[in-house]
This record gives sequence, structure tokens and C-alpha cells, in this order.
Amino acid sequence: MVHALRAVVCLSLWLSVCQVRGSYIPQEMNKTIQNLLQHYKIPVRERFNGRPVFSRDLLNGKMETKVVFMGAVLDTYKKLIEHMMKQVPSPHIAGTQVPPASAVAPAVPTAAPGTASNAEAGGLRKELGYILTKIKFLKRHYNEQETLLHGLQKLRDIKMDDMVVQSKALWELPWLYEEASTLITRNKERRRRRRQTRKFKTRPQLH
Amino acid sequence: MVHALRAVVCLSLWLSVCQVRGSYIPQEMNKTIQNLLQHYKIPVRERFNGRPVFSRDLLNGKMETKVVFMGAVLDTYKKLIEHMMKQVPSPHIAGTQVPPASAVAPAVPTAAPGTASNAEAGGLRKELGYILTKIKFLKRHYNEQETLLHGLQKLRDIKMDDMVVQSKALWELPWLYEEASTLITRNKERRRRRRQTRKFKTRPQLH
Repeated sequence: MVHALRAVVCLSLWLSVCQVRGSYIPQEMNKTIQNLLQHYKIPVRERFNGRPVFSRDLLNGKMETKVVFMGAVLDTYKKLIEHMMKQVPSPHIAGTQVPPASAVAPAVPTAAPGTASNAEAGGLRKELGYILTKIKFLKRHYNEQETLLHGLQKLRDIKMDDMVVQSKALWELPWLYEEASTLITRNKERRRRRRQTRKFKTRPQLH
Repeated sequence: MVHALRAVVCLSLWLSVCQVRGSYIPQEMNKTIQNLLQHYKIPVRERFNGRPVFSRDLLNGKMETKVVFMGAVLDTYKKLIEHMMKQVPSPHIAGTQVPPASAVAPAVPTAAPGTASNAEAGGLRKELGYILTKIKFLKRHYNEQETLLHGLQKLRDIKMDDMVVQSKALWELPWLYEEASTLITRNKERRRRRRQTRKFKTRPQLH
């Protein structure tokens, strides 16, 4: 009971802070998240175990890194919410459905979304759908990162056991090695120029 | 025979072009790649089938994208060469060893590295080791990208079926949504300032 109360207080405080701080999050979105958290309940000790799903280390670095990482975070949110929507049982079977995969290790089984009634399942799907729309809308501004993430995905799928791949990769190495070396020089030069521009801007005007 | 001749001519031409163009690739590295390609032989029609292992599309874009992608390419090369080294049979069993996984679909089975003699295997391992050293050395300049790639890897490993993850992600959403929205504004503002600086620089001096 104490834990639950603490969770509600923390949640309200957290959302209030976001509300005050953030002009970008509409009130409806905040309220929807609050409602959803009533369905996706987990014990307070699990919520505050110091292991967030999305690490914030990369959001303290350079702008380029932050933008790429944030694009990937939004992409992950999109996939996660879509996955959660699929787990909500269809209206005609809601209430009678066995808990879905999400309930493999449910923290509060009675509140698991898979056991929702018809009305609850409909509401849950609607709320998740609304959050998904908001994420997709924001994600459109990170379109450039999508191409990069797709390219990185393709690199991971390379078949390292295939001799054709091995041979082709060796063949492509001279060009890529050359390009990678040139890129370092160009990047350093660009940074140097920027530092100079910044110095020039901050230099006191003597006339 | 015609095919083989054409391959040798193409290879020599390609490496000569790299040699002329690239001051970054040492002659020894070019020679080692040429030697390795004699071991990792594939038919010409496979080499020039228009599907390179490493797409160059992302290397034509913005500097930020290029640097991140190149960091990932070098990381892939490191893993691939390490994998190829493991496939070379140990000296005491070389020559008697059955072809390794690389020879699952060998293009030229008689030249597959898994069937190399003791001396050949030793030479092959040495040459691959040399290329690996060169890649690792260049990769050190892409250390910043390594942290980002590690972060992206962790995002892919998120357990979407786990209700604790789902709940925590919902909880973290307001902060991240706010941060993502702010980032867009800041990035746009930064670009606008850069455009202005560039305009200022290129504007004709009237006095």
C-alpha cells in the first residue's frame, strides 16, 4: 500500500514536472501516458532499479550523436508501441483471452493488458494508438537518421561465413580504407575551421 | 581462362588506381590485399554483379552521416577479418583439415583457405593479421562512433515482450519526447546560424 502510494505520488510529480518544463508535450498525451501506466503496472522497486530502458549517456554528447541516437530511440518506441498494440486482445475475444506474451513475467498479473475486458481492450488500443501517432509525427523530423539506421542494419546482416562476401569485402577495402582516411582529415579540418569561426565571433571588437 | 585473365587485369588496374589516388594506403597493404585475393578467389561474374558488400550511398551524404557509417564499416571489417582468421586451420592440422564454414558455398573449392598447406595457412594468417592491424589502427580515429554504435546495439536488444520494459518505456516517454522535440528546434537553429555564417563569409566586401 505504501509502495503503491509512493508510486502514484512519484508519477504525479514526474508528470507535473514534465508538464511545467515541457511545452512540447500536449496535456492529452501526458494524461494518456498516466492512464496507460495504470494498465502497465510494475512494482516501484522495479521501476526505480537504476536501469532505465533508454540510457541517457548518449544524449549528453555532441549534437550529431544525439540526433542519430534520438532517431533510433523514436524508432524503437514506434516498434514497441506497435508490439504492445498487437498484444491487446481483439474486441470479440477480450476478457476470455489467455494473457499474451507480455504477461510472461507480469509484475501485477491482475492488471495485465491481456486480461482486459472488451471495453478496457478498446480503450487501451485507442490510447496506445494515440501515443503511436504522436511518436510517428515527431519521428518524421528524424527521417535523415532512418536511412543511416537502415544502412547500419544491413551491415549487421552481412554473412561473414560466405567466401563471396569475404572476397568482395577484400576487393572493396582499398577504396574504403582510402575514403575512411580522407574523412578523418576532412573532419578534423572542418572542426578546426569551426573553432576559428567561434574564436573570431567571441573576440572583443576593438573599433 | 578469359575470365581469369580479365579478373587479373581488372584487379591490377583497380589496385593501380588506388595506388595513384591514395596516399593513405601503404604499398605493402595493397600488395597484401592482392595476395589475399589469390586465396579468396571468386568468379568475375560474382565479383561484378552490382551488389557490393558495403553500399556507398551513405558515403555521399552529410559529413555526420558519413562518419557514423564509416565507423560501422570499419567495425564490420574488423569482425570479418577476425572471423576469416579463425577459419584458417591451425598449423598442425593444416592440409588435412576439412574445409571450414567459409567453404559451405566456395566459388573455387580448390583455392578455399581451409584446404591450405601448413606454409600457406601460416602465410594467410600473417597477411590477414597485417590487414587487421591496419584496420584497427584506422578505427582508433572513429572511437566516438563506437560508443554510439554500442548504444544503438543496446536499443536493438530491448525485450519488447517484457511488461517491465513496456511500463518503464512508457514512464520514460515524457522526458524523451520533450528532449526529442527540443533537439529538433536546437538543430534547426544551429543550421540556420551556420547558413548565416556561410552567407556572411561569401558576401562581397563593399568597403
